[in-house]
Amino acid sequence: MFGSTYGNTLKISTWGESHGKALGVVVDGCPAGLSLCEEDIQVFLDRRKPGQSAFTTQRNEGDLVEILSGVFEGKTTGTPISMIVRNKEQRSKDYSEIANYYRPGHADYTFDEKFGFRDYRGGGRSSGRETIGRVAAGAIASKILNQLGISITTYSKSIGNVEIDYNKLDKDNILKDTLYMPDKEASAKAQELLKEKIADTDSVGGIIECVVKNMPAGVGEPVFEKLDANLAKAVMSIGAVKGVEIGDGFAVASACGSENNDNFKIENDRIVKSTNHAGGILGGISDGSDIVLRAAVKPTPSIAKTQSTVNKSNEEIEISIHGRHDPIIVPRAVVVVESMVALTLVDMLFMSITSKMDDIIDFFKK
Amino acid sequence: MFGSTYGNTLKISTWGESHGKALGVVVDGCPAGLSLCEEDIQVFLDRRKPGQSAFTTQRNEGDLVEILSGVFEGKTTGTPISMIVRNKEQRSKDYSEIANYYRPGHADYTFDEKFGFRDYRGGGRSSGRETIGRVAAGAIASKILNQLGISITTYSKSIGNVEIDYNKLDKDNILKDTLYMPDKEASAKAQELLKEKIADTDSVGGIIECVVKNMPAGVGEPVFEKLDANLAKAVMSIGAVKGVEIGDGFAVASACGSENNDNFKIENDRIVKSTNHAGGILGGISDGSDIVLRAAVKPTPSIAKTQSTVNKSNEEIEISIHGRHDPIIVPRAVVVVESMVALTLVDMLFMSITSKMDDIIDFFKK
Amino acid sequence: MFGSTYGNTLKISTWGESHGKALGVVVDGCPAGLSLCEEDIQVFLDRRKPGQSAFTTQRNEGDLVEILSGVFEGKTTGTPISMIVRNKEQRSKDYSEIANYYRPGHADYTFDEKFGFRDYRGGGRSSGRETIGRVAAGAIASKILNQLGISITTYSKSIGNVEIDYNKLDKDNILKDTLYMPDKEASAKAQELLKEKIADTDSVGGIIECVVKNMPAGVGEPVFEKLDANLAKAVMSIGAVKGVEIGDGFAVASACGSENNDNFKIENDRIVKSTNHAGGILGGISDGSDIVLRAAVKPTPSIAKTQSTVNKSNEEIEISIHGRHDPIIVPRAVVVVESMVALTLVDMLFMSITSKMDDIIDFFKK
Amino acid sequence: MFGSTYGNTLKISTWGESHGKALGVVVDGCPAGLSLCEEDIQVFLDRRKPGQSAFTTQRNEGDLVEILSGVFEGKTTGTPISMIVRNKEQRSKDYSEIANYYRPGHADYTFDEKFGFRDYRGGGRSSGRETIGRVAAGAIASKILNQLGISITTYSKSIGNVEIDYNKLDKDNILKDTLYMPDKEASAKAQELLKEKIADTDSVGGIIECVVKNMPAGVGEPVFEKLDANLAKAVMSIGAVKGVEIGDGFAVASACGSENNDNFKIENDRIVKSTNHAGGILGGISDGSDIVLRAAVKPTPSIAKTQSTVNKSNEEIEISIHGRHDPIIVPRAVVVVESMVALTLVDMLFMSITSKMDDIIDFFKK
Repeated sequence: MFGSTYGNTLKISTWGESHGKALGVVVDGCPAGLSLCEEDIQVFLDRRKPGQSAFTTQRNEGDLVEILSGVFEGKTTGTPISMIVRNKEQRSKDYSEIANYYRPGHADYTFDEKFGFRDYRGGGRSSGRETIGRVAAGAIASKILNQLGISITTYSKSIGNVEIDYNKLDKDNILKDTLYMPDKEASAKAQELLKEKIADTDSVGGIIECVVKNMPAGVGEPVFEKLDANLAKAVMSIGAVKGVEIGDGFAVASACGSENNDNFKIENDRIVKSTNHAGGILGGISDGSDIVLRAAVKPTPSIAKTQSTVNKSNEEIEISIHGRHDPIIVPRAVVVVESMVALTLVDMLFMSITSKMDDIIDFFKK
Repeated sequence: MFGSTYGNTLKISTWGESHGKALGVVVDGCPAGLSLCEEDIQVFLDRRKPGQSAFTTQRNEGDLVEILSGVFEGKTTGTPISMIVRNKEQRSKDYSEIANYYRPGHADYTFDEKFGFRDYRGGGRSSGRETIGRVAAGAIASKILNQLGISITTYSKSIGNVEIDYNKLDKDNILKDTLYMPDKEASAKAQELLKEKIADTDSVGGIIECVVKNMPAGVGEPVFEKLDANLAKAVMSIGAVKGVEIGDGFAVASACGSENNDNFKIENDRIVKSTNHAGGILGGISDGSDIVLRAAVKPTPSIAKTQSTVNKSNEEIEISIHGRHDPIIVPRAVVVVESMVALTLVDMLFMSITSKMDDIIDFFKK
Repeated sequence: MFGSTYGNTLKISTWGESHGKALGVVVDGCPAGLSLCEEDIQVFLDRRKPGQSAFTTQRNEGDLVEILSGVFEGKTTGTPISMIVRNKEQRSKDYSEIANYYRPGHADYTFDEKFGFRDYRGGGRSSGRETIGRVAAGAIASKILNQLGISITTYSKSIGNVEIDYNKLDKDNILKDTLYMPDKEASAKAQELLKEKIADTDSVGGIIECVVKNMPAGVGEPVFEKLDANLAKAVMSIGAVKGVEIGDGFAVASACGSENNDNFKIENDRIVKSTNHAGGILGGISDGSDIVLRAAVKPTPSIAKTQSTVNKSNEEIEISIHGRHDPIIVPRAVVVVESMVALTLVDMLFMSITSKMDDIIDFFKK
Repeated sequence: MFGSTYGNTLKISTWGESHGKALGVVVDGCPAGLSLCEEDIQVFLDRRKPGQSAFTTQRNEGDLVEILSGVFEGKTTGTPISMIVRNKEQRSKDYSEIANYYRPGHADYTFDEKFGFRDYRGGGRSSGRETIGRVAAGAIASKILNQLGISITTYSKSIGNVEIDYNKLDKDNILKDTLYMPDKEASAKAQELLKEKIADTDSVGGIIECVVKNMPAGVGEPVFEKLDANLAKAVMSIGAVKGVEIGDGFAVASACGSENNDNFKIENDRIVKSTNHAGGILGGISDGSDIVLRAAVKPTPSIAKTQSTVNKSNEEIEISIHGRHDPIIVPRAVVVVESMVALTLVDMLFMSITSKMDDIIDFFKK
């Protein structure tokens, strides 16, 4: 059954394999009249591009996006926006070996079990390159949010056991930083850690944090299409993510109600919360505070260190995965998390428009 | 927009408010020929019933289910199964006070922001009683899984800072235990903790763990309808859940690739994994190992301890919430997590049936 | 897979069998703040009620609706609205005979083929009583349309070969007329025809016409969620409907472009069409003219006249279906067509709200 | 809101404008292991290609398809199949005039009302070229049906008032015939009619008929996802279609029950129907007989004959639409109807797989 289509109102369909001819996305349901050009998309795609530092793969992939439909004279027309990124390298020789065995931590085995065989070149559809479609669509969603005054900041909160210090948080550092960390000192330490891991032919995981500002209250559809439920799905659908939390997240488990509850107060004649343990969502609906979300990202499964596994002849073998693999997934996944959050927020903002009969009457009376 | 409908193939629509006339669910898409009676549902509902211990509310709600359609001569007919639980008490006097202020940690404020007003009686639709529909539907999903040889075990892994010891794990204790813990010693300690919290007019959170056995490999639809993505949504949609993790979850952030990867090996001529850090899911597809999932549950927001908040006249006030409130949500949420997992597994099992052309040809050749 | 859930934004789930305990519907996604009471629903249900004339079945079914959720203090709350109609008679003796053979023109055979067996009592889920859920939901949709100034008029256009004369059209006659015809003379002739058919132990079909006034232009989502496409699905999903047409419908096949095109002109400073061959829909989007739709309804398949068929032992037999069956389905289906049209219009009006970026910015700036 | 995505299990997303860079489709949910190459698609696309006869536009569009993903070593992989057709001509000069006025019978006005502006080049998204995506996807659906032994025959039943004679029906003539008619004599007469219409600067409509053979019984999901309901939506979503009927269709309105009911009988030990007034669908579920469907197609709205309309300055003007326009839409729409029917049948076949619990148990026991 289908699996590459996402969203209830703004629907995206991503497609493409790591070493196929191209990858892309169709964005169906984008409102008409949004200014949009390829540069808007490219800025986002460049944030996930490899070859930008010592810690990301050195392939020069380019990943230039082309908009094929849905934009006319610089504005979206309301019809589907098709975007494509051609793959420059389609050589399969580097990957031919993996056709016959199952890499630990990868989806080789499960794809074979599910589909009977797989496009093994570079991981095929289960490659990180799959996220190109998500990010291209996310760039559009971010532009829509921007028009509504909503902003998202996403960064590496921790790399291995190196965590940022919130007292030293400098948001301007994020996009300049090779690890997308908002704390230069933590980044320096994390870079040391990564050098060690490279030397040790190993890899490491980390945590990505995402903060949404100016989200209006009232967005989210109880009881299943809650804002947090859809954010959890959106972020957990990203390849290496193994956990998602909102606000205090897992820390609530050992907190008391009197600590965890956020009191309401009046500030500038408006109702606000004194604290934000809830991460901006109460009862699955945005409460007007910052939305705070974290994703746990596993270490890169492709490592040169020797590993045991089996091949398709059911023989136990030892392998060492060579090639250009990042020792850390986190930095390149930052923009993917941001994209999935942006897509979900836009979808749920649109869903929330019909909450009140009075608003609907106003809309059609115009 | 709609929000109380869930599932792609087996679709459920839950309805009902805490103090309305009734609550229930329509299960649309259940295959024909499944033996089903009200007792199957009641067993599940009784697991979430209040009044069963010192730590759950003492209302005698009964919560007797009636099946209204979709079952004929003891078997499901393939048509929608409608189930209803009448509310016995509809007195609103106990709750009238909360109509005018916003309880911290509750959805009072966000419902008002979203819908313009709310059914304030007992929390209305945002009450925990909303889960009656989920659990009734979950009982059917569990019966389907049972027919396929798949079983789910769910329990309280921690209550506050009291955690179970896996060395003392006794699954037979779960359903007997007042806190649904599989470790009697941990349960005894947790009960002590809860008594302290009750004395302190406070509440506490915890973690629920869910283990699925005998899940076939190959279930999950990359890249958005991944098994883990849908499990995350399903579980995060439950009222008090603030975090979800699969397998090692947040611990992967500080692990190395060489530690986190699960090697494949041959056991009884079958490919299996040596470890299960991945929690039974690789690339969003089940890998044949146990599926392991955890949910972080926040402390009960209704506490008698004095709290600051605001009322609908935008005045800052102090409140103390009295009434019959559990000091812990976790035990009653165990069966809700299990129900949401069961519904998601069935949905995704059904979705996976069309993965291979050969299977489809076989099916229709019969 | 699910089949009793309908709609993209306003989602309904109907349930119930002819001779089960009850029938009903859950309406998920109705905006908050709509005045609603049981009488609003009952008025619609009464239009499909049997026993109202010589030509409809004489059972005294009552069909009193109860609203179980989603309404508080006389207004919808934005949460699911559950409605139920208890079946008074559940005697199955009248229908036991049909358990063993397949009635021509009925779904007995296809239900058995699909599900392996069927609830044979009164046709089970394939009975016309299934439409109770549609009509109860349609009453809510109609109320929403009414708030937006949109009205629907639906009537019997023809009964057998007796057709209304548009020159004698009297809309006030529709609800008073035993056949829901807007032309008294035609109705008188049709009643004569029906008496003949009853005497002849036979039945007859007809055409239902539906006219929507004041529909705003711009509603409908090309290229698959077009307004006409969804109307066609909605109406064709009704039991006895075998054809649907919009505007001139099948007559366009023999028309010339110069005849069929509707010219635009200026009237009161607004752009309008000179004619309405298109039936109010151009390119799948409403054009501001009346929406005109017709449905072809087959003759009642249950007839006392002797028919050949087979039983479950694969024997060829002759049957004569006795009991209380209408000689014509059309009049009671009028309100069902209107309900399905209303539900579709509301759904598509809601879908159209996010067509323009400027409207969305305006909405959230409030 | 989205509108270019179709299907419940096999989901397609089409995109592209008449004079944009390209048009295409993403097919999400195609099972793995289906042999597929570009030639399979091209054969279908060539059936809708213009320039093939005196009665279709003379542009040499080529319309060569490229498969960009989802196929590996000649077989579908189960991941999304992206297909693209580049537009050769993107000159907008031929169409610049229509930017300022509303063509009668076209969607110019409704697109402007809905989206605020439109891509006016060649009709943009409302052009018949939009169907390229449908047909490319339909080719895949047809291949799947072919594997299941199901075949579809689609042809022009009537052109204007010229109708085929079923006694002279020659299916082998369809693909050879310039008008896709299965009756050479009727085709010759229709060609005469078209020459007259061309001379008269006018156009004409017609009826397309579609017959599905070997459809298994039991497919269709009551009460909304009925097979006929979805076929009606699928076909009505095609640009020029104004009516859809199943089996006897509108003729049932004047038939008696004793005429319209199809008796069951035994043939070769199997239950079959003696006649097929129902067109292969009973109660929304396939009954094993041929599925018969007809679509009414309106005359080409672009005619050189002078017409009145208004421009964007709200002035009434007279226009004459020149350029390369077919005098008849029907022949090129034949493959579009077939494609939409094929997509719907595959979708509903897949949906029907989970009808019986026993089948599901068998499937997973393998």
